Amino acid sequence: MDYVSPGDVVENMIRAGQAKAKLSPKDLIVRGAMAGVFLGYATTLAFTASIQTQMPIIGAILFPVGFVMVILLGLELVTGNFALIPAALLDKKARMSEMLANWFWVLAGHLGGSLLYAWLFVVATTSFGHTAESPMIEQLIKVAESKTLAYKSLGVDGLLTAFIKAILCNWMVALGAIMAMTSKSTFGKIAAMWIPILIFFGQGFEHAVVNMFVIPAGMMAGAQVSLSDWWLWNQIPVLLGNLASGVLMAGLALYYTYKVKGTFASEPHVTSTELKIKNG
Amino acid sequence: MDYVSPGDVVENMIRAGQAKAKLSPKDLIVRGAMAGVFLGYATTLAFTASIQTQMPIIGAILFPVGFVMVILLGLELVTGNFALIPAALLDKKARMSEMLANWFWVLAGHLGGSLLYAWLFVVATTSFGHTAESPMIEQLIKVAESKTLAYKSLGVDGLLTAFIKAILCNWMVALGAIMAMTSKSTFGKIAAMWIPILIFFGQGFEHAVVNMFVIPAGMMAGAQVSLSDWWLWNQIPVLLGNLASGVLMAGLALYYTYKVKGTFASEPHVTSTELKIKNG
Amino acid sequence: MDYVSPGDVVENMIRAGQAKAKLSPKDLIVRGAMAGVFLGYATTLAFTASIQTQMPIIGAILFPVGFVMVILLGLELVTGNFALIPAALLDKKARMSEMLANWFWVLAGHLGGSLLYAWLFVVATTSFGHTAESPMIEQLIKVAESKTLAYKSLGVDGLLTAFIKAILCNWMVALGAIMAMTSKSTFGKIAAMWIPILIFFGQGFEHAVVNMFVIPAGMMAGAQVSLSDWWLWNQIPVLLGNLASGVLMAGLALYYTYKVKGTFASEPHVTSTELKIKNG
Amino acid sequence: MDYVSPGDVVENMIRAGQAKAKLSPKDLIVRGAMAGVFLGYATTLAFTASIQTQMPIIGAILFPVGFVMVILLGLELVTGNFALIPAALLDKKARMSEMLANWFWVLAGHLGGSLLYAWLFVVATTSFGHTAESPMIEQLIKVAESKTLAYKSLGVDGLLTAFIKAILCNWMVALGAIMAMTSKSTFGKIAAMWIPILIFFGQGFEHAVVNMFVIPAGMMAGAQVSLSDWWLWNQIPVLLGNLASGVLMAGLALYYTYKVKGTFASEPHVTSTELKIKNG
Amino acid sequence: MDYVSPGDVVENMIRAGQAKAKLSPKDLIVRGAMAGVFLGYATTLAFTASIQTQMPIIGAILFPVGFVMVILLGLELVTGNFALIPAALLDKKARMSEMLANWFWVLAGHLGGSLLYAWLFVVATTSFGHTAESPMIEQLIKVAESKTLAYKSLGVDGLLTAFIKAILCNWMVALGAIMAMTSKSTFGKIAAMWIPILIFFGQGFEHAVVNMFVIPAGMMAGAQVSLSDWWLWNQIPVLLGNLASGVLMAGLALYYTYKVKGTFASEPHVTSTELKIKNG
Repeated sequence: MDYVSPGDVVENMIRAGQAKAKLSPKDLIVRGAMAGVFLGYATTLAFTASIQTQMPIIGAILFPVGFVMVILLGLELVTGNFALIPAALLDKKARMSEMLANWFWVLAGHLGGSLLYAWLFVVATTSFGHTAESPMIEQLIKVAESKTLAYKSLGVDGLLTAFIKAILCNWMVALGAIMAMTSKSTFGKIAAMWIPILIFFGQGFEHAVVNMFVIPAGMMAGAQVSLSDWWLWNQIPVLLGNLASGVLMAGLALYYTYKVKGTFASEPHVTSTELKIKNG
Repeated sequence: MDYVSPGDVVENMIRAGQAKAKLSPKDLIVRGAMAGVFLGYATTLAFTASIQTQMPIIGAILFPVGFVMVILLGLELVTGNFALIPAALLDKKARMSEMLANWFWVLAGHLGGSLLYAWLFVVATTSFGHTAESPMIEQLIKVAESKTLAYKSLGVDGLLTAFIKAILCNWMVALGAIMAMTSKSTFGKIAAMWIPILIFFGQGFEHAVVNMFVIPAGMMAGAQVSLSDWWLWNQIPVLLGNLASGVLMAGLALYYTYKVKGTFASEPHVTSTELKIKNG
Repeated sequence: MDYVSPGDVVENMIRAGQAKAKLSPKDLIVRGAMAGVFLGYATTLAFTASIQTQMPIIGAILFPVGFVMVILLGLELVTGNFALIPAALLDKKARMSEMLANWFWVLAGHLGGSLLYAWLFVVATTSFGHTAESPMIEQLIKVAESKTLAYKSLGVDGLLTAFIKAILCNWMVALGAIMAMTSKSTFGKIAAMWIPILIFFGQGFEHAVVNMFVIPAGMMAGAQVSLSDWWLWNQIPVLLGNLASGVLMAGLALYYTYKVKGTFASEPHVTSTELKIKNG
Repeated sequence: MDYVSPGDVVENMIRAGQAKAKLSPKDLIVRGAMAGVFLGYATTLAFTASIQTQMPIIGAILFPVGFVMVILLGLELVTGNFALIPAALLDKKARMSEMLANWFWVLAGHLGGSLLYAWLFVVATTSFGHTAESPMIEQLIKVAESKTLAYKSLGVDGLLTAFIKAILCNWMVALGAIMAMTSKSTFGKIAAMWIPILIFFGQGFEHAVVNMFVIPAGMMAGAQVSLSDWWLWNQIPVLLGNLASGVLMAGLALYYTYKVKGTFASEPHVTSTELKIKNG
Repeated sequence: MDYVSPGDVVENMIRAGQAKAKLSPKDLIVRGAMAGVFLGYATTLAFTASIQTQMPIIGAILFPVGFVMVILLGLELVTGNFALIPAALLDKKARMSEMLANWFWVLAGHLGGSLLYAWLFVVATTSFGHTAESPMIEQLIKVAESKTLAYKSLGVDGLLTAFIKAILCNWMVALGAIMAMTSKSTFGKIAAMWIPILIFFGQGFEHAVVNMFVIPAGMMAGAQVSLSDWWLWNQIPVLLGNLASGVLMAGLALYYTYKVKGTFASEPHVTSTELKIKNG
């Protein structure tokens, strides 16, 4: 049957981390860009649902659609990789330099894809600026400002709040990537990964990749947010918070309690392609 | 288990593109016509739900029913074929002339099926003209006008807006056809393909095949839209936008990052019938 | 995996049509009666949901429950048989006389079952006439009158409207019976067949078997509809419309495009019992 | 695949009936008591949902949770047994005395479990009588009175109404136990059995086991219903109605049309334990 | 197929109890802490949904997300272990001292994880105290007070009410852990375990682990609840009630009626790791 027990999930985390660490910058950028775009699509769908129903929880119930596309199509998501590659590193299946290269190129892809989708979406929504006001435009502006200026107004406490909301976020998002491994069936994966993504988005925690779309989209739509507001008061503390919980609370916690010594190290060397197939 | 990893999905895209490129005009027209009809049914169901709930997102959640019928019954959808056949072409499994013939005959089928359903639906809804006013009639008229006259009023910016909304649309719809290949199980396919279709319809992006039903249906119901309004300000720019994202952002992007050199070329020649079964 | 490709679906349609053509009148009546009852249950459930939520689409989302019971328990539904047995006939697996006998006895069963459920339901809802008014009673009367007197008031246009609504109905219902064959898994079948049934009921198209319950139930509840109103202005044109689309647009269209010559004719003769098991 | 065709479902009904007929009073009481408790839980959950949403259909959509627990855990439900054991009896796999003993002990278990849950629930809801008024208390009182005094006020017509509502109920509940056998997969079973249970509860038909909880719970909460009101005007006619439709319309109807002569009788004798596993 | 019959479920309960009894304090604390955190996430998600929709049942429908993560990732939940380890004990597969050690360390983990999440969540929600008022803050305070001070005001009757609500809670939660074993498929497990968790949370019964988050979170948010209010009037009676129903009504009841003598004792000794894999 399709259920995968926790011990095997941890082995799969290591293999997935290993395979991801070996990917070329070309693949990392393309897959990271697509992931950025899909999370952008999911965010605007969720905003549409929230605006129409006046209940953001309905938007949150729909938001995981983008994450599901990312995982089922095997794309790269840096916040998931924060949990997977360190597990491979601990198991001596990946090197520190490979891990940092993965994170760098995937982030570059996310930024490019997110900005592309932000431009396309804002242009389509405003008809190239002819429609300056609409509930969606207001929503984009409001969210971009609340995710930056609101923290700025609180100073260090704002930075720390963003950091903690980012910890709370990626404990779940990284587990989303891991929960997808608890099943070998497509719908099993969909259902299992839907859960933590719904949890994080429903409560407004801070996700670095979503923010790479939503803050610049708000800026394009007219939010009074500067480039430094965006990065200093949101993107940087949020990336650090996502990193902290992804590595420690999701990846290493499961590795620590479920990794059985020596069961994997003894297997023959497999190529990155084989791994890609196995880790699907 | 039923999950299909991305590398195998790309192989399946190539095989499906190959099989579709070999189909006769007869099959392309019949299957294209049925697909046009089913998307028409889905559109009127979604409008019904939107009218009753006053929340278009509920209509969008139901809309994928038509797409699911198209894919599960193996019918032809030109916007999906925009992604599948170019992948086969790149892999030397289909010829340019076959691809263009497929698109032409399938579009002809879509147009015929859409107009047939539009006529049947408008006649049934108005009781052969006896009931001239109803929320559904108003909805058809409003949508037909906003999808043509609204763009016309903006001139070139309107054309570009339609083009970009069509890019945003078919990035998702083409991925709908591809996501269906991430599972070998019927419900896995249904769930996976539901996602991108919900995303595009929920946000009002422009889909050429849906528009082949909804604009003429609106015209039959009384919208002040001329034949040239329909084609110049919607159908042509939308087809081009659907084509652009289907080919480049869905088909070639996945081919580029997941196609493993030479793994498929070496297989023995298979007939179109075998392909049809394999690609199910 | 459980997905069944279109070519195999058409083979299964032929086998199912063949098996159904061989059933005895006894089985056709019993299975037709149960099917009539179950669609009656589904109709009153949908009405209950519509009344409480004031959104008929919620009722439509629930309505397929009855159809699912009919198909999973292998019962007979004449509107599905309109598509299945002609396919067997074309393939020389059934005779015209067997087909007509099947339709006759199944219709007799539907009528009996529908009248039985109508009587039980009206008696229970009115407490043997003690409760003459309730939202459900009003709904039954309103629907029965709108499905007969409204057409009558339009004369020939009314007949044609009923006929076209019946075409639009059974294009979907017959595909419901066929979509159930796209999966060999119980839940796959449920999900696949739910779709076209939701589409037809949500839009108020005309289904002969549902009407065999809802019009006489309305008459028992007090609708001013005569026996000839029922049959002349609804049951007969609706049966003809259901027949037209079931045979041509669902059954023969799929047969025409997916039937591979000679693949089935060469198989050894199988008994009706074996067919029953295979076609499940 | 997990779908079970109707002919095999009928064989499974016979085997399940045979196994149930052989169970000891001890097992029948324990399993019947748990089933009574779980239906009580489901009833109060449904009431909670109805009270909060003011739409009883939402409660009905949730109500099958209790039935699913009963069936998946293999517990005993007398209304399901009304269909299963007579099928075994007809097939000479069970004796009349075993059947009556099963029904008696299971009913005893239901009564015990229902009264226990009623006491626990009323005590918890009222904080041992400190909170005498709440929407839930009012709901329990209202339902208990409408299920007894309302029938009493109509005399014989009330008795007959209760009897017919009980026929309408158990046609569905007994089919719930049978629909669960249309799949060998856990979720397939859940989805298939959910359907008829939703149908019956959504329309307020009368189920003897639910009433064993809801009427005494209402009495404990303050309903002006006497012990004889409960049994004479509800429990006895409802049990008879449930019996009639369970035996005739669910069990024997399917047996009559799907049982293939002699296919099962020739199998070697199997023990009750093997049956328990096979019939899961 | 993936369905597991009740007899095998009881064997799996015993094996799971055996494996859990052998785990080291390190694993028990880590897995218990993660479980405490995930139930905290689920509680705040449910509160968010309840606040936005004003219908707590919607929150209850979402609440099982946390439980699903706990079970699919194989973490430790003391209220489930109340049912599983006594079954192993009865079967001589675990010792009393191992059982008590498991409960102690898992509870310690729950308390640590719950307090950590409470602190992170309250700090993020109030922006380190800058935002003292919000619907979520009010909800946390209200719940914490109603789960302690309300019982205190009733004296002994309050204690007994908490105890009975805890019995009603863990009859379901312990069955949640057991229902997950009725399937070997990931989605089958998710659906089966969702049911009893929805039942308990929807009706506001008392769960010791949820309370370890919600009461201290309310206290951090400003509830006028002392440490002794928390433990004396809630945590202790609730733990005892959870224990009573987990051991007796869930674990032992199923063991008593489904355990077949001697079927398991004769198997060769298996290691804890093998058990972990088998019991997945």
